[in-house]
Amino acid sequence: MENVKIVKYKAFNEIASSVVHEMKNPLSAITLGLEYIQLGSAEAKAKADVFSNISTAVGRLNEMLENLRLIFSDESESGKRTPLKISEILGKTKGLMNYYLTKNHIHFEINADGDEPWIIGNEGQLMTIFFLAAAWLIRRAESGSSMVFQLAPENGSIKVMAVSQGGSGSLSAKPRPAGDKQTTEALKELASANGWQATFAEPDDGKAELTISFPAGKLMHQKRG
Amino acid sequence: MENVKIVKYKAFNEIASSVVHEMKNPLSAITLGLEYIQLGSAEAKAKADVFSNISTAVGRLNEMLENLRLIFSDESESGKRTPLKISEILGKTKGLMNYYLTKNHIHFEINADGDEPWIIGNEGQLMTIFFLAAAWLIRRAESGSSMVFQLAPENGSIKVMAVSQGGSGSLSAKPRPAGDKQTTEALKELASANGWQATFAEPDDGKAELTISFPAGKLMHQKRG
Repeated sequence: MENVKIVKYKAFNEIASSVVHEMKNPLSAITLGLEYIQLGSAEAKAKADVFSNISTAVGRLNEMLENLRLIFSDESESGKRTPLKISEILGKTKGLMNYYLTKNHIHFEINADGDEPWIIGNEGQLMTIFFLAAAWLIRRAESGSSMVFQLAPENGSIKVMAVSQGGSGSLSAKPRPAGDKQTTEALKELASANGWQATFAEPDDGKAELTISFPAGKLMHQKRG
Repeated sequence: MENVKIVKYKAFNEIASSVVHEMKNPLSAITLGLEYIQLGSAEAKAKADVFSNISTAVGRLNEMLENLRLIFSDESESGKRTPLKISEILGKTKGLMNYYLTKNHIHFEINADGDEPWIIGNEGQLMTIFFLAAAWLIRRAESGSSMVFQLAPENGSIKVMAVSQGGSGSLSAKPRPAGDKQTTEALKELASANGWQATFAEPDDGKAELTISFPAGKLMHQKRG
């Protein structure tokens, strides 16, 4: 998985400043909240609201750290498998790169219905797949474009189709970034290690398409953990 | 600087879980502190202490984020130079890997006297140098060993001699880790981009030695910023 590592670190470098910004926002919320409470004049109700906001901020920081840990943990390398919800992992991936997306005016959309079945796989590796997939799509996306992850469950399997559609015209004219093949190879390797399949297409209509196929686990009606 | 990047990401992977742990500790301090204050029975003095502890925790989180940003920022790539204190940057580097050092029973010591002159260089690159140097030394260090960074100012320049001395015997018998040459090459490249020089030695007495020479800036008695 040497190539996977290299590609992962490169992609991390692209969003590292985004991760830092995402974590600094809740820190500001905590600091401001504490200053307000220390003023001493706040009413009980207002104080309770501030405490609740601070708790939310701490929870958000904790979640981001947990997601970072997942991508870089030994567990992610060991390949330990658990039941997973694809939309949940997509949401976590989005959480790590929110600031980056906002800064580049790229819309990240996750379309999933409520009936999504569980799949079995390694959580850190699945997050890395979506992290790399998003990076691959973003490199093709102009400012103002949309990146849509569409979950389509169909007899015993799920497809995730991710499309990047240019904001102000065709993407096909954009030069392909260097190191791009490395990313798609890494994605395929990670997917195949879990029994999934990744395919890429860049049709002439200015879209970039990525499809990952997951045979669903047999845990549809079980609770996780 | 392609090699520098690859080596940097590899080293980051080694300490990523350490960074997450270091940040989770202050988060726990914040959560526990808030719970205590919300109990409502605490005296004013006790409350003030809790607020002060939470502030410290927030400050520590902020500093860690700032250090992460430095290593992965565009500024670090652009090579923008400012006056720097070597011992300060060494301290920040240590802060990022504290948990990793504790877990591996490795002592990280910084010896500097008060008369340390300023040097001129890129802050993120200097931190990356120490980060890579520590990683290089740690790979040679047995549990219980010491890693000492000794600052020695001498006519118009500073030397940083870093030594890793095995805890339970000779290090020279330890097999050299793969990818090691990449790290030393990256270190040399980063140093030379700033006009500094890095040399490595692994004498037979079981030590691993790293020396970085910095011609000092002419800012010895000026304040920074």
